[in-house]
Amino acid sequence: MEFLVRIQVGLPVDMPASERQSLLDAEAAQARELMADGNLLRIWRVPGRQANVSLYEAPDATELHRMISSLPLWPWMDVRVEPLAAHPLEAGR
Amino acid sequence: MEFLVRIQVGLPVDMPASERQSLLDAEAAQARELMADGNLLRIWRVPGRQANVSLYEAPDATELHRMISSLPLWPWMDVRVEPLAAHPLEAGR
Amino acid sequence: MEFLVRIQVGLPVDMPASERQSLLDAEAAQARELMADGNLLRIWRVPGRQANVSLYEAPDATELHRMISSLPLWPWMDVRVEPLAAHPLEAGR
Amino acid sequence: MEFLVRIQVGLPVDMPASERQSLLDAEAAQARELMADGNLLRIWRVPGRQANVSLYEAPDATELHRMISSLPLWPWMDVRVEPLAAHPLEAGR
Amino acid sequence: MEFLVRIQVGLPVDMPASERQSLLDAEAAQARELMADGNLLRIWRVPGRQANVSLYEAPDATELHRMISSLPLWPWMDVRVEPLAAHPLEAGR
Amino acid sequence: MEFLVRIQVGLPVDMPASERQSLLDAEAAQARELMADGNLLRIWRVPGRQANVSLYEAPDATELHRMISSLPLWPWMDVRVEPLAAHPLEAGR
Amino acid sequence: MEFLVRIQVGLPVDMPASERQSLLDAEAAQARELMADGNLLRIWRVPGRQANVSLYEAPDATELHRMISSLPLWPWMDVRVEPLAAHPLEAGR
Amino acid sequence: MEFLVRIQVGLPVDMPASERQSLLDAEAAQARELMADGNLLRIWRVPGRQANVSLYEAPDATELHRMISSLPLWPWMDVRVEPLAAHPLEAGR
Amino acid sequence: MEFLVRIQVGLPVDMPASERQSLLDAEAAQARELMADGNLLRIWRVPGRQANVSLYEAPDATELHRMISSLPLWPWMDVRVEPLAAHPLEAGR
Amino acid sequence: MEFLVRIQVGLPVDMPASERQSLLDAEAAQARELMADGNLLRIWRVPGRQANVSLYEAPDATELHRMISSLPLWPWMDVRVEPLAAHPLEAGR
Repeated sequence: MEFLVRIQVGLPVDMPASERQSLLDAEAAQARELMADGNLLRIWRVPGRQANVSLYEAPDATELHRMISSLPLWPWMDVRVEPLAAHPLEAGR
Repeated sequence: MEFLVRIQVGLPVDMPASERQSLLDAEAAQARELMADGNLLRIWRVPGRQANVSLYEAPDATELHRMISSLPLWPWMDVRVEPLAAHPLEAGR
Repeated sequence: MEFLVRIQVGLPVDMPASERQSLLDAEAAQARELMADGNLLRIWRVPGRQANVSLYEAPDATELHRMISSLPLWPWMDVRVEPLAAHPLEAGR
Repeated sequence: MEFLVRIQVGLPVDMPASERQSLLDAEAAQARELMADGNLLRIWRVPGRQANVSLYEAPDATELHRMISSLPLWPWMDVRVEPLAAHPLEAGR
Repeated sequence: MEFLVRIQVGLPVDMPASERQSLLDAEAAQARELMADGNLLRIWRVPGRQANVSLYEAPDATELHRMISSLPLWPWMDVRVEPLAAHPLEAGR
Repeated sequence: MEFLVRIQVGLPVDMPASERQSLLDAEAAQARELMADGNLLRIWRVPGRQANVSLYEAPDATELHRMISSLPLWPWMDVRVEPLAAHPLEAGR
Repeated sequence: MEFLVRIQVGLPVDMPASERQSLLDAEAAQARELMADGNLLRIWRVPGRQANVSLYEAPDATELHRMISSLPLWPWMDVRVEPLAAHPLEAGR
Repeated sequence: MEFLVRIQVGLPVDMPASERQSLLDAEAAQARELMADGNLLRIWRVPGRQANVSLYEAPDATELHRMISSLPLWPWMDVRVEPLAAHPLEAGR
Repeated sequence: MEFLVRIQVGLPVDMPASERQSLLDAEAAQARELMADGNLLRIWRVPGRQANVSLYEAPDATELHRMISSLPLWPWMDVRVEPLAAHPLEAGR
Repeated sequence: MEFLVRIQVGLPVDMPASERQSLLDAEAAQARELMADGNLLRIWRVPGRQANVSLYEAPDATELHRMISSLPLWPWMDVRVEPLAAHPLEAGR
């Protein structure tokens, strides 16, 4: 099942640069793992914002929560999840 | 997987009473079938409104859509679906 | 450039079934053409609603408007468009 | 009478890990007591968020307030309560 | 238990005056009955609007729904219910 | 004239317990005075929240502001005031 | 006491021109009476809309409701009322 | 002074095609006049919607209202106006 | 041209009393100057809040911004400006 | 393609004046560069607020994000981007 996920990141402006960088590196590594596993299908930047929209594949919302909360930036994230149903136009896709 | 579903029904006030009644009867019959099949787990009235909150069990959002849109009142419904993840406090439930 | 598009369809409940069906058939045909042309990349049902979320590829918002307003159901649609920027995690995708 | 309760938890990101853990342990213990007493009937995670949806049984809103404010995390919670009425479909349940 | 109830009435502007008057008379009669029974404790007009705020006493939301939906104007009402808990300042009131 | 007042209190979580207690005591004392003077007619807790709904009698909004801002917790309050008009059903009350 | 009043007028587009004109004439006459009586102190157009913002002087919300609902366009109005308190800067005004 | 104006057009779907076309033609003619007079500086389509965003130059809100309400589609428009102040970066523009 | 201005003041609760007082004194002095110059026509307290509604006369939004940002409390203000058009009922006022 | 961009700046009130000034200077320099390059076409102040509305020309949302995030104040900005489509009235502009 697919989910549309909106994430706004709220790292404090005054976080030391090195701490911020190592967090961002860890975040990218974990996100790439989710992509490699076929869980994180697509991801886009919301232009102008420290935010993204992404498309997940997960068996259910419990597994989706496990994936999102595994991200190192999770404690600073505001996350909204929307469930998606298959559309007949994609039948046979 | 469980879903929290909010439904506001908007039947026109001037619908003939018999048409309304037969719609409501068909709706109740179909809802009871969803309950018997273990899809519609709980349902509550929103006090004061022609609306309800319900708890569904469905394999995914595609099946949930099939269930909700099978309801005879569906063309008059405004529906909001929220995905639910398991909470650790219910582990072993 | 990609766009996230949300469409709520508001066909009147009392539209004659044949008129509705021929509109829906024409809609599906036109949507398939947009898919074949690589403009409509993905489409999902919003569970429980006569609504969808879709992902478009278009050179700009002017072309996107031309695509969406070419859909036969357009006069009955409420449409929201959100621009998407590429995310570094997809570099090399 | 049943109530639908939405809770968003806002523990500060920089709370010491041990303090956080002991708060979470105390929270879980108190929640289990509310479950054992038949007050907290169900609880779900809102996927992606430090938030939950729960179903309470309480004689009235005054007792419900006493239950919720007994939770150790209460000072950091944003809580919304919605009263639920019985639905005729559940008659005889 | 007490509930705060907000009601917006949406009678169509072109309803025949006699039909409107007999509805309003029936509404007032039923509301007075709810007052006499100790269910409808207070009622205020929202200034400038065909709307009111009222205070109900009811055993639970199920009974409250029965009371509100007994009002002849109910099919034209938009109703919002908010549960109220006792405040310690009123202890001994 | 009566006013419906909604107050959300936002005391910081880390306020020293003794300072908090003396503020709450002073608040209760001042609220009781407003009750004794016939200004604060009713007060309810919003279940689950550090918030209340109350009913004031005041000659006008200027006096109401003087009453509310006399409360010791006022600097930490978010307050919303709604004017109430008499309802014909209460005529002769 | 002064009140800030926002009114959006929703006359149907297809109302016959003569009916519309006689309503607007009656509205203007009644509004001028409220101005002459010192009840309607100021009135502004919301640019681009069939709406206005106005400033009323009335003893209380009950009288204000009587004034607003005396306007011939009232059945087509959506009205929002906000109570205003005197500001110390205007003391001695 | 410049104003940012958002207009959503709500022509009924079932308006006869010829009536719609003559309205749209008259609208375009009047809009071109506003452009020629230096009142309507820019106009954009909101992609996917029967809506536009535009930039007006007008001496004040009264004149702006006169301009907007001169448009033949005005009775079917929902209009929002936002005042704009000069930005220092454009000094000397 | 007239503007309706809403200002919410957000001075921190723990600002030293003397600093607060001197800010408030400077604010009142500057506001009185704006009143004397015919720019600030009216000002009201929003009851219960550290907020006000005011009526400004200014040649345009650029000058209005200069006036508002000249207020000593400006760095702590959340300000909303609404343009007002003349209403025919006030013609000849 | 053009984009409408809304930016609210949230510099902390207690930032040292020299740091603030050097940030604002760097911001102005970078904004002037975007103007010189034909990317930032127009910019307006939102009256009364530390906010602006601007009009960008960018090949797509990815480039737009690069432009906006190049601004020195970006870490303190809340940004909303809206895509704009060409309007037929401007054909030949």
